[in-house]
Amino acid sequence: MLQGKNILVVGTGLIGTSIAQGLINHGLHVVLSDVDPQILGTAITKSGARAWDSSENIDLAIIATPPAVVARIIKELIASQPHAVITDVSSVKGSIFNSLHDVSDSDKSRLVGGHPMAGREVKGPESALGDLFVDRPWVISATEVTSQSAIDLVRELATTLGAVPIERSLIEHDRAVALVSHTPQIVSSVLAGQLRDANESDVELAGQGIRDTTRIASSDPELWSQILSGNALEVAEQVTLIANRLHGVADALRDGDSAFVREVLVQGNAGRDRLPGKHGGAVRISVATVMVRLDDKPGELARLFAVAASANVNLEDVRIDHSLGRMTGLVELAVAMDAQSVLVKALISAEFVVVR
Amino acid sequence: MLQGKNILVVGTGLIGTSIAQGLINHGLHVVLSDVDPQILGTAITKSGARAWDSSENIDLAIIATPPAVVARIIKELIASQPHAVITDVSSVKGSIFNSLHDVSDSDKSRLVGGHPMAGREVKGPESALGDLFVDRPWVISATEVTSQSAIDLVRELATTLGAVPIERSLIEHDRAVALVSHTPQIVSSVLAGQLRDANESDVELAGQGIRDTTRIASSDPELWSQILSGNALEVAEQVTLIANRLHGVADALRDGDSAFVREVLVQGNAGRDRLPGKHGGAVRISVATVMVRLDDKPGELARLFAVAASANVNLEDVRIDHSLGRMTGLVELAVAMDAQSVLVKALISAEFVVVR
Repeated sequence: MLQGKNILVVGTGLIGTSIAQGLINHGLHVVLSDVDPQILGTAITKSGARAWDSSENIDLAIIATPPAVVARIIKELIASQPHAVITDVSSVKGSIFNSLHDVSDSDKSRLVGGHPMAGREVKGPESALGDLFVDRPWVISATEVTSQSAIDLVRELATTLGAVPIERSLIEHDRAVALVSHTPQIVSSVLAGQLRDANESDVELAGQGIRDTTRIASSDPELWSQILSGNALEVAEQVTLIANRLHGVADALRDGDSAFVREVLVQGNAGRDRLPGKHGGAVRISVATVMVRLDDKPGELARLFAVAASANVNLEDVRIDHSLGRMTGLVELAVAMDAQSVLVKALISAEFVVVR
Repeated sequence: MLQGKNILVVGTGLIGTSIAQGLINHGLHVVLSDVDPQILGTAITKSGARAWDSSENIDLAIIATPPAVVARIIKELIASQPHAVITDVSSVKGSIFNSLHDVSDSDKSRLVGGHPMAGREVKGPESALGDLFVDRPWVISATEVTSQSAIDLVRELATTLGAVPIERSLIEHDRAVALVSHTPQIVSSVLAGQLRDANESDVELAGQGIRDTTRIASSDPELWSQILSGNALEVAEQVTLIANRLHGVADALRDGDSAFVREVLVQGNAGRDRLPGKHGGAVRISVATVMVRLDDKPGELARLFAVAASANVNLEDVRIDHSLGRMTGLVELAVAMDAQSVLVKALISAEFVVVR
């Protein structure tokens, strides 16, 4: 039970302060620590938690510092807080927990790896948000000797903040995030890097495709170089596979082997279809798409959503098309298959142009 | 002047039928041709144009077939229609026009390369849309001997359909689309291909990042293998650069060279910033982002847009965050910098949670 416990958050950036704020909102007792007094001050104001007096005993410590210093802080807390359950929020697990090989099993039983999969493209305590973790996966990775009570406490931490706890081994975690997060980050950054020295007249023709593919290339280089370095071998392996495959496509293009190129595109279709959610993935069984062409006058988007709402249709997804750096009038709404005809009828009665 | 002219569209898929429909909506005279009588029938019903009687003379021919047969059809029309201006809509230019080297200069003066940069993830005449080209770039590429009157006619075609004509040489066109469209397509397909044989438990952790990076991996393999093969050398060159860079990142990760990794991420930031539109690109000088956390109850999205509309704020962009295959409550609105505070005030008075 978190209630009545003394909870410490070490590292009060976006994630740490968001956790503190969320826990305070649930009436829990939270203290904060950060090496930077100014950042700590902002986090205190923002979250309503107070600064940690290091003579004070802690029941649960959440380490939300950059990945590079997490292992060191875990060791310090193991020594100074002999009864605390200790968890972290890093995007990497193996490299941190491997460097804890000299920790005794009895101390390791208090350690729980954690990774709330939420974030924002802005950073710092001023951007914190108590409900940042709502509906997000919070990966929980125990060591081989972690106690069930320690795991349960971190599960409660996750659910209190509205997240969905998902248990994975340290190795499973690192392999999964290499696949769905770290490798896409590198690929997107390298692809976007090609635009850097391109002619202005070439870049001008950019549409929605390259915009989507390079969105995450805007991520923070400092944080991400730490994350990627912390999962280096797993990511290197996947990036190498992709690089080899791209060389294969380049060779096929030069050799006129369009069957090979086609096969790569077919495999891309199949891979894309594995993503949860849209188009028959794991979470939703079937989603239908309704395309609407909006007139270029103010308020049309509002009217569109109002019609969907009054038809009692729940939108699974909304995507708006872009061109020439502007939003165009083409809006794609994803709804449950059985809601499609209801939505289309409602839109047509409201005189929207539904594209078929 | 298009008015009064006899306009032929050859190939009545999505693009050809959309062109026909748009021109018919402007009271122009359009006839259609397609090798597949069933597709032609659908296109006639959909667009209101009629079938071409091949004894009938044509003033403007628009070739909207798959790229692989465009050159052949251009040659046939040069022979059978000695006075027609001839244009196409292919995503590739050099490979088509290079194979026309035996066409006389006087015939070449009637040829204009065209590429309306619009499309949909569905295909066929039944998906056609008369205003598919509104606000889209329509690249116009003349040969070295194309007459000004032929260029002007194709410019008028583009503007009649609401598109923005952009003149580029054949070489410039192919280089630009390799950069902003063809290479991203391959990179996205190869990245998505990695998901194909992944463990379900790994894919389950997918968030918005990989969802965006792999969106275009859903594209049609048949069409895209033709497009890529038609721009093979330019695309192969760019894909090779990316593959080499990825190998460099993989090596740096294995060697623990985090400075190199960081530099690649910094270059990704810089490349991304070159895209027109959002975040200081060419079209809009300054766009601000407002993040709103929506309650999970029906109609909140509608209410959000209604508030933006009644505050007279024009949304430049809307992005909705996803996790666990569901839409989360985090909505990102992009507005002109000077509209930001107006929007925030309006949202707060309407009791929305604006995330700062």
